Amino acid sequence: MNIAQGIWPPAATPFRADLSIDFDRYIAHCLRLLADGAHGLAVLGTTSEANSLDFAEREAVLERLVAANIAADKLLPGTGATSLGDAVRLTRHAVGLGVRGVLLLPPFYYKGVADEGLFAFVSALIERVGGDRLKLYLYNFPQMTGIVWSVALVGRLRNAFPETVVGLKDSSGDVAYLDKLLESYPGFAVFPSSEALLLAALRKGAAGCISATANTHVTEIRGLFDRWRESDAAALHNQVSSVRRLVQNYPLIPAVKALLAARDKANNWLHVRPPLEPLDPQSRSVLLAALTKLRGTAVLAST
Amino acid sequence: MNIAQGIWPPAATPFRADLSIDFDRYIAHCLRLLADGAHGLAVLGTTSEANSLDFAEREAVLERLVAANIAADKLLPGTGATSLGDAVRLTRHAVGLGVRGVLLLPPFYYKGVADEGLFAFVSALIERVGGDRLKLYLYNFPQMTGIVWSVALVGRLRNAFPETVVGLKDSSGDVAYLDKLLESYPGFAVFPSSEALLLAALRKGAAGCISATANTHVTEIRGLFDRWRESDAAALHNQVSSVRRLVQNYPLIPAVKALLAARDKANNWLHVRPPLEPLDPQSRSVLLAALTKLRGTAVLAST
Repeated sequence: MNIAQGIWPPAATPFRADLSIDFDRYIAHCLRLLADGAHGLAVLGTTSEANSLDFAEREAVLERLVAANIAADKLLPGTGATSLGDAVRLTRHAVGLGVRGVLLLPPFYYKGVADEGLFAFVSALIERVGGDRLKLYLYNFPQMTGIVWSVALVGRLRNAFPETVVGLKDSSGDVAYLDKLLESYPGFAVFPSSEALLLAALRKGAAGCISATANTHVTEIRGLFDRWRESDAAALHNQVSSVRRLVQNYPLIPAVKALLAARDKANNWLHVRPPLEPLDPQSRSVLLAALTKLRGTAVLAST
Repeated sequence: MNIAQGIWPPAATPFRADLSIDFDRYIAHCLRLLADGAHGLAVLGTTSEANSLDFAEREAVLERLVAANIAADKLLPGTGATSLGDAVRLTRHAVGLGVRGVLLLPPFYYKGVADEGLFAFVSALIERVGGDRLKLYLYNFPQMTGIVWSVALVGRLRNAFPETVVGLKDSSGDVAYLDKLLESYPGFAVFPSSEALLLAALRKGAAGCISATANTHVTEIRGLFDRWRESDAAALHNQVSSVRRLVQNYPLIPAVKALLAARDKANNWLHVRPPLEPLDPQSRSVLLAALTKLRGTAVLAST
């Protein structure tokens, strides 16, 4: 198996003023992330506003990336949906393109569902997609889904599908949960969603991280990943963590897009699809000024 | 305008053992609901497991109903989705068939979104669907979506789109919210989701109710609706409420399906799609026995 490891930014999706996808800017951004140090791209996740894209767009995004000569094995797209049928459709399409794996949200409409029901959903998906090319990374984000991939369920899924259920991205921010996963399942590819958790997690066996702020700071986060056993690791950790702490004082997706707009001098980056709202101009100015003060202008010009 | 009123059961969706839709049984169930007193059918909602159907199935369900000569103006389908594009697609399709209106969930992936973002979503949907045949009923179910159509936002939407935003189904069970809506917006078609709330709500101007338990008890609920100003209204209220209280001691959707399986002697009704789970046989027996004791065998044989 060729399990994903390292820094996989959840690439943000730029929109035009009419909210259609700005594919040219998107491809350029993805290529830059890879050039700047990303091991691969966790596209079509929460930061990408994937659940605000329609299903045809989610398929088009992957096809455009592959058409732009980004190797499919550098892609870890989200293929979750509330219905088994739609999750199967999106997963089959992604696997057909040759992606490294898929990030799977639990079916997120009903709440209070039991592990047994989630197990049935994943089992049915694996059976229907079929083949041995499917590699599933569970996507845990209870703040959005209202559902946790419990540590017990993760273990049960790994046991039942050891060649298929190979990892998990944890966006919960719950360090006790993250630690429990890392302790319980050595070799399972666990990715926290913040570089502020990366160093501690790597010491416990994490695979890397999938962080929204890697959209603008991938080189520095990659530096920490490469040097986490070195003597300057704590300093690198402090550096990336201070940026992260600053940005996450704001609504994270609009804030990341505001930083990309400033970096690229491109207002299309400011657009978000409803129900999200763009950062107001005042907050944008304050964020940019604070970031400049914190890290110097080089922060937004890593290439 | 021809606003929906009365008892609109959220018709449950029967599945075969392979979890495909049992359309014959579904159509028979819908015809029976109408024959038994339903004013119309609120299909493709939560009780219908609509978010566990894929989009092609959601369209097929409506087409089958119309092909079975159920008048489209007796249909109030759910057309919500997390993305604007998919919600527009489903809404356009439903409006094209001539439905009475559509029940719209808020975009339910992101949490903590502001009224402004929800307003932008609904505005964009109305603009993109276009025409004057679209009648929107907001679908409020914060226990599933994590989002409330706030009373203020409902007012704002009504003011901005008085010919389009005509009603709301409230599944929150929050009586203070329901009352506030009824007080604030006379003429707005508000439907509580439980017949236990129906009498009090009708006295305050509600339009009717859209209740899961109307799948099995529509005649009695219709009786209460027709006679709510009569001297036996309190007795009718007590009757339907006692059934409702009993059934909602169980997971509501599997419990309703268990009752339909017993009524029709058809095990296909027991199937639910993951992540939901069927009621276990023991609970089924207890529920059926309790209901028989409470209401007599006639309860499940209203036709």
